[in-house]
Amino acid sequence: MPVRDMSVMCAVCSGRRARPNLNLLLLLILLLGPHTVEGVWPLPQAITSSTERYPLTPQAFCFSYGRRSAARPGCSVLDAASERYFSLIFPDYTYANDVLRLSENKPFTVEISVDHDDCDSYPMENSSEKCKDQLMLLDDTFWSCYRYFVNKTKIEDFPRFQFRGILLDTSRHYLPVKTILKSLDAMAYNKFNVFHWHIVDDPSFPYQSHTFPDLSSKGAFHPMTHIYTQSDVRRVISYARLRGIRVLPEFDSPGHTKSWGKGQSDLLTPCYKGGIPSGTFGPVNPALPSTYQFMERLFKEVSAVFPDSYIHLGGDEVDLSCWRSNPYVRAFMQKMGFGVDFAKLEAFYMEKVVNITSFFNKTSIVWQDVFDYHERVMVEVWKEGCYLCEVRRVAKAGLRVILASPWYLDQPGPTHNWARYYTVWPLAFKGTEEQKSLVIGGEVCMWGEYVDATNLAPRLWPRASAAAERLWSNEKQTSSVDKAFPRLQDFRCILLRRGIQAEPLYVGHCKHEYHSV
Amino acid sequence: MPVRDMSVMCAVCSGRRARPNLNLLLLLILLLGPHTVEGVWPLPQAITSSTERYPLTPQAFCFSYGRRSAARPGCSVLDAASERYFSLIFPDYTYANDVLRLSENKPFTVEISVDHDDCDSYPMENSSEKCKDQLMLLDDTFWSCYRYFVNKTKIEDFPRFQFRGILLDTSRHYLPVKTILKSLDAMAYNKFNVFHWHIVDDPSFPYQSHTFPDLSSKGAFHPMTHIYTQSDVRRVISYARLRGIRVLPEFDSPGHTKSWGKGQSDLLTPCYKGGIPSGTFGPVNPALPSTYQFMERLFKEVSAVFPDSYIHLGGDEVDLSCWRSNPYVRAFMQKMGFGVDFAKLEAFYMEKVVNITSFFNKTSIVWQDVFDYHERVMVEVWKEGCYLCEVRRVAKAGLRVILASPWYLDQPGPTHNWARYYTVWPLAFKGTEEQKSLVIGGEVCMWGEYVDATNLAPRLWPRASAAAERLWSNEKQTSSVDKAFPRLQDFRCILLRRGIQAEPLYVGHCKHEYHSV
Repeated sequence: MPVRDMSVMCAVCSGRRARPNLNLLLLLILLLGPHTVEGVWPLPQAITSSTERYPLTPQAFCFSYGRRSAARPGCSVLDAASERYFSLIFPDYTYANDVLRLSENKPFTVEISVDHDDCDSYPMENSSEKCKDQLMLLDDTFWSCYRYFVNKTKIEDFPRFQFRGILLDTSRHYLPVKTILKSLDAMAYNKFNVFHWHIVDDPSFPYQSHTFPDLSSKGAFHPMTHIYTQSDVRRVISYARLRGIRVLPEFDSPGHTKSWGKGQSDLLTPCYKGGIPSGTFGPVNPALPSTYQFMERLFKEVSAVFPDSYIHLGGDEVDLSCWRSNPYVRAFMQKMGFGVDFAKLEAFYMEKVVNITSFFNKTSIVWQDVFDYHERVMVEVWKEGCYLCEVRRVAKAGLRVILASPWYLDQPGPTHNWARYYTVWPLAFKGTEEQKSLVIGGEVCMWGEYVDATNLAPRLWPRASAAAERLWSNEKQTSSVDKAFPRLQDFRCILLRRGIQAEPLYVGHCKHEYHSV
Repeated sequence: MPVRDMSVMCAVCSGRRARPNLNLLLLLILLLGPHTVEGVWPLPQAITSSTERYPLTPQAFCFSYGRRSAARPGCSVLDAASERYFSLIFPDYTYANDVLRLSENKPFTVEISVDHDDCDSYPMENSSEKCKDQLMLLDDTFWSCYRYFVNKTKIEDFPRFQFRGILLDTSRHYLPVKTILKSLDAMAYNKFNVFHWHIVDDPSFPYQSHTFPDLSSKGAFHPMTHIYTQSDVRRVISYARLRGIRVLPEFDSPGHTKSWGKGQSDLLTPCYKGGIPSGTFGPVNPALPSTYQFMERLFKEVSAVFPDSYIHLGGDEVDLSCWRSNPYVRAFMQKMGFGVDFAKLEAFYMEKVVNITSFFNKTSIVWQDVFDYHERVMVEVWKEGCYLCEVRRVAKAGLRVILASPWYLDQPGPTHNWARYYTVWPLAFKGTEEQKSLVIGGEVCMWGEYVDATNLAPRLWPRASAAAERLWSNEKQTSSVDKAFPRLQDFRCILLRRGIQAEPLYVGHCKHEYHSV
């Protein structure tokens, strides 16, 4: 059976708060066997394909705006997506720019209709990603390479979880902007909608702040070549927006801040040994008013630069020994009535930072460590072990939860174990429907200890695709690893054809292999 | 301490059978701290660097042929290597073609002298790779980006083992020719000198035979896009030759031949079930005279196409159940007096094939499985467990051994465990000096189940570099993982700058990061 090329198109889209993002368009190029949905990934909520077929050529095909659509021609997100997907469907056709013009005479017109004109805004947590209408599968037949056939197909689709993220760590290794943009492409193909940018950490501070330029000029691996300028950041955010992806920045503190200290004196706690400063530094110093003045100015800038309404404040793995060693910190604890309970000091610090970001209208997310002493924030569960116990604990407390524990894709172990990331059941804990609804999604974490631009893509894809389907699709329809395997193999070939360096799942081949330079 | 760029050059080279290959030239571009040898990988047998320094510019630098050199200007291998390395030393200089001309007036002339003019031959098992003379370290100083300084340095060098191979598997996944050439580049930088081309196997037969074109037209993943034409093979061999690398082809039989059967009827054994053919096929049929006629014609072609004096015949993992099930095979066994000892049948088959390749003047290498019943060949040890027990057993039998067991880099497990491949001691078995001298080298195996062009490079490099140093350098000088770590980190940065997609060992950065497209 020859492998076929297919495409799914959403003709008319609508939704509760229908901003015209990529998932509304829902355009995919797929490699499928005839009349199957093997390469459709993640699996739509409902898909029916008939044997009715129509020939299709680039000359006969176009996108257009529906008559009832609130968004009109010129809508940046829709125009850009139409062009992008036209090129993906017909990679060799050179007049892709005509795609949105003169549509009335084309026999295959995909009408895009949306309820609201949110063309110039950013994707939000509550943006609708529903899609419902007639769709067509394009079938590139073996005996006629330059001719496509479409099977009449109906798809109804919406995501299971609202938050479907990927964390990239640009502190342990610097990732060139191009690498980030390429990852955003792949994320969009997988319907991930949150890029969690773990932008700074202990090893380096590549974010170039205009308020505190020394943070990167002294804290980055290199002050010129290993930084993200304001224009780099804008480029990433804009590229993500056109693909329906939110950019969630993380400025993790008070721990994981060694690199911050290089460009900002008196920010970190001086550690003591034998009654005198040892010359080393610990977490952010919570005892100084200057710390909070700094944080206020930094987060004021960050809140303005990153338009998303969420901000990730980290808060994980705070090493208390340095605080303990410092007599000024201890004196501050006495003054505040914390005694020797350093969890209270952590809570005090986080409270201050949460208040700062709240003031700038941001919803805070923190790593699960913070939940133990702070109960006003959204919690990301990351630790191993019984992670669903923790999910349940947070949901019972009435807080929203994001699950990351089972999707640490950077972790040591065989790299081809995608099934491990597929057989994750985020709601398999004892709880009320209301509690379960507090689990807003999940996130793939790609920490940077052993990962940079050389191996990021094959390590992410298609393993992250396993998480993508878990977070998007109906669990009952996608519980079988065996059924998913051939679909994921086909989808991986689609990723290859689109230029994503996705590694193989097992022996075999793709029609279009990856051609490295 | 700023990271520096350095280069080592071998001014005059000589050797026992001094063909002018890359290792004789021994030109490296290195990233080093001043007056250290951190980026020199694999470690030379002897290196001393002085603080004496000279400025160096592309205008003042050239290669030339020594007066006593047997090879004269126009020698393909030396000319090509000089050009290649000149470009690596001065990547931005555009007149690299002048490098071998007008050398007399240049203050920095690297004289190449070799004892024999083997300019047009192929690297052989006994080609000398010795190098001894004055060398210079180029030091790209931090305060003057476009100026190099050379430290006076003396290097004496030769490999510990004669056979330093990498196996690539182009049957389980097809590797584009470009990917193979890029791997040859990286191999040369690491002083690997054998490309073991596991070109065919069960899943596909990409080698396009002119004697049996059906083997690839029916047995390849795709008859046009997933094959190696004769000209592809010539290109690989020629590219390898210019880099001092031998191409060792493997045509594994009688097992691992499923794909052969698609284009050659009556080659594989029909398996029986309940007294009738089941429709499935097993290993090559050893009971038919036509099998050996086929093998003779195939290996006649292969012996002519691949100039190396070695050929790998495989012989591993033969599934005997199909032979057992076949009444004709059993009748053949009776006729030959083998009774029910299928090892004798295997031995008979391998003996025949070894004789065929001997007739074409090839030395046979087989996987260790064959050693159990055949004692006339060179043995590659690949199984896990006490692999040194097996090495010892083979050496005691007086046969030459290649060690692969500890260097299965494709195996599941953490991908960043380079130290596991570094702390291998191939001669740490009880045996005489003569027995130890039979261990001619080792090989990194990159099987293709989970590997193709998308992830080959980061999975190979720099982990294979760990094996490279073990096979090249003095064991006593390179037994410490801690000492090797910073050197390997630096060398990995050099690989990146040369365009090799080598993954990181740990947190950090390189001056020149890999920029993916």
